[in-house]
Amino acid sequence: MSLHSEIHEQPAVIQNLLGKQTEITRIAAEIRKIDPAYVFLAARGTSDNAGRYANYLWGAYNRLPVALATPSLFTFYGQSPLLKGALVTTVSQSGKSPDIVAVVEEGKRQGCASLAITNAPDSPLAAVSDFVIDIAAGPEKAVAATKTYTAELLAMALLSVELANDSTRRAELQNLPIWAQQVLALDEEIARLAERFRYMEHCVVIGRGFNYATAFEWSLKMKELTYSVAEPYSSADFQHGPIAMVERGFPVFAVAPSGVILPDMLGLLKNLRETHHAELTVISDNLEALALAQSPIQLPAGIPEWLSPIIAIIPAQLFCYHLTRTRGFDTEAPRTIHKVTETH
Amino acid sequence: MSLHSEIHEQPAVIQNLLGKQTEITRIAAEIRKIDPAYVFLAARGTSDNAGRYANYLWGAYNRLPVALATPSLFTFYGQSPLLKGALVTTVSQSGKSPDIVAVVEEGKRQGCASLAITNAPDSPLAAVSDFVIDIAAGPEKAVAATKTYTAELLAMALLSVELANDSTRRAELQNLPIWAQQVLALDEEIARLAERFRYMEHCVVIGRGFNYATAFEWSLKMKELTYSVAEPYSSADFQHGPIAMVERGFPVFAVAPSGVILPDMLGLLKNLRETHHAELTVISDNLEALALAQSPIQLPAGIPEWLSPIIAIIPAQLFCYHLTRTRGFDTEAPRTIHKVTETH
Repeated sequence: MSLHSEIHEQPAVIQNLLGKQTEITRIAAEIRKIDPAYVFLAARGTSDNAGRYANYLWGAYNRLPVALATPSLFTFYGQSPLLKGALVTTVSQSGKSPDIVAVVEEGKRQGCASLAITNAPDSPLAAVSDFVIDIAAGPEKAVAATKTYTAELLAMALLSVELANDSTRRAELQNLPIWAQQVLALDEEIARLAERFRYMEHCVVIGRGFNYATAFEWSLKMKELTYSVAEPYSSADFQHGPIAMVERGFPVFAVAPSGVILPDMLGLLKNLRETHHAELTVISDNLEALALAQSPIQLPAGIPEWLSPIIAIIPAQLFCYHLTRTRGFDTEAPRTIHKVTETH
Repeated sequence: MSLHSEIHEQPAVIQNLLGKQTEITRIAAEIRKIDPAYVFLAARGTSDNAGRYANYLWGAYNRLPVALATPSLFTFYGQSPLLKGALVTTVSQSGKSPDIVAVVEEGKRQGCASLAITNAPDSPLAAVSDFVIDIAAGPEKAVAATKTYTAELLAMALLSVELANDSTRRAELQNLPIWAQQVLALDEEIARLAERFRYMEHCVVIGRGFNYATAFEWSLKMKELTYSVAEPYSSADFQHGPIAMVERGFPVFAVAPSGVILPDMLGLLKNLRETHHAELTVISDNLEALALAQSPIQLPAGIPEWLSPIIAIIPAQLFCYHLTRTRGFDTEAPRTIHKVTETH
C-alpha cells in the first residue's frame, strides 16, 4: 500500500530535507539580491494548497506579498499580465504541467527571476527555472500526494527562515521529525474514529491563517480519496454566508492549533457546537478546542503556529486513508484521476 | 420580496452605473499616473467573488496582476506584507468590515494609493480610500447580495475600459441592460427547472477564466439561500483531484458561454456527461454545451466573453431564488447570516 507507507515516510522525508539547508541558504541569498516586490506563485491541486501556506508564511515573516496565479490567464488570453518586480514561483510535484511551465516562460520573457519547488529536479519546469528547490521526497506512487505536500511546505519554511536569517525559527525546525512521528502514532486511534463517518456525504473543513492551507489540503484528500464533497473555508469566509448550511449534525472538520488564530477559531467552534449543534472533528493541541469536538485529534504540545501546518495535515491524511478503506474504495488509485494531470 | 425585486432591478442598476462613466474616466486617469506594479485586492464573500473577475479582466485587458489579499495577515500577524508598487483595492457593499478597512489603513501607512468599490460612499471604507467608485445600486435589503454583485463587476469592467481607453469595449458595455432584461425573461422557465433539485444535497459549480467568478458566486448563493453544499471549481482544478467524486447522477452546474474558454469547458462537459453520467445544468449561449445538459439555461447570443459574467450570474441568481422557495426556506433572511458580517 503506497499511500499508507508514504504517509509514514514523512518523518524521514522531513529529516532528509532539513539536511539540505545549505542549498536553500544559497538560493535565499540570491533572492535577497533580487529583492522582489512580490511573489507570483503558480501551482495546481495539492501544490496550490502548499502555495496558500507560502502566502501567509512569507507575508507574515518575510513581508513578501504573494499573488496566487491563475494559469489560464497565460494559456488562454492573448496578453499576459506585466510581472515587473515579481519573483515567479512555481510548486509542482512532477514539474510537468504545461500551464505551470508556461507561467515561468512568460516571466522569463519579461525578465523576471523564477523559483521552482519540485520533486523532479530533471523536469521541464526545473529546466526553465533560475532557482530550483528539490524537495527530494523520493518517488510518490500513490495518486493522492502526501509526503510531497509536507516536503513542499517544509521547503517554503526553510526558505522563509533563510530569507530572514532567523536563528530562533531555524532551531524550531529541528523538532519537526519528532512531532511528525508523534502524530503518526495516532494511526490506530484515527482508524477507529474514521468509522463514524462511513456514510457522511458532505462536510466543510475550516482553518485560518497558516492553517488555511491545511483546510484546503484536508478537503482535497477527502474528495480525491473518500469521494465525500468537502469544502474548505477560512473561519471568516465561512461566516460570510456558508454558515447558513449548518444544521443539527452537520459535519465540520477544523484545524485549530495554538497560536494567534486560536481565539477566533474557538469562538466559531463554540458557536457551531452550542448554537448550531454541528458535529465537530477537531485537530488541535488546545484542550478547550478538543473538548468541543465529538471527535478530537490531539496534536503534541509546543508546536509553533508557523510550523503547525506541516504536522497538522498528517492526522488528516491518516483520517482520509482510513475513511477510504472503511468505505471499501481503492486508496492507491482513486477513480478518474491520474498522478500527472496535464491541464492547459 | 426584496430578493426577487432586487434581482429584477439589475437592468436599471446597470443602466444607472453606465451613466457614471465620466467619474470612472477621471479615476482611471489618476491610476494610470500612479502606474501600479500590481493590484492588492481585499474583499469578503460576494465582493471577493467580484474580485476574481477583476483578477482575470484586469490581467487579460490591462496587464495588471491582481493579488487577492488574505485580510487576516493584516489583523492577526504582527507585520504586514510590504506593498511597494501596489494599488490597494477593496470591494465591499457596506464598506464596514473592519478587516477590509485595516488593509487600506496599512497600505496608507506604507504610502500606497487605494481604490474602494462600494455601495456606501459614506462608509468608513470610502472615508479612508483615495479613490471611490460608488456603484450606486440603491439600498440592498435582502441578505443575499445580487444587484450589488453585478454592479461591482460592472464597475470593474468600466475601469478596465477606461484604463485601456478602449472604444470597442466601451461600445459593447451599452448592450448590458438589454441582455440583463433578456435573461430575466427566463424567470418562469427557471422556476420550473429548479423543482428538479428539491432534494439535491450537494453539487459542484464549474467555470473558468472570466466566469471563474460566476462559479464562485453561484455556489455562494446556493449555500446561503438553499443550504445545499455547493463547491466552486475551475475546470482545470476540478480535474486535479475533485473529479473523483463524480458518480452517476452527481449534479454539476456549469457556466460555459462562448469565448476562448469554451472548447476546454465543452471537453469537460462531454467527459462528465458521457463517461461519468453526471447530471448537468449549463448556462451558455452555445448549442453544443446546452445539448449536453439535462437542464440547459440559454443566454442571449452575442455577449462578448469579458462581459458574460455580468449576465450569466443573473439566471443563476433566479435559480437559487426559486430553489429556495421550492424548499420552503426564507429567501429574505437566510438562517444564521446577517447583511453586514464584521469579521476581524
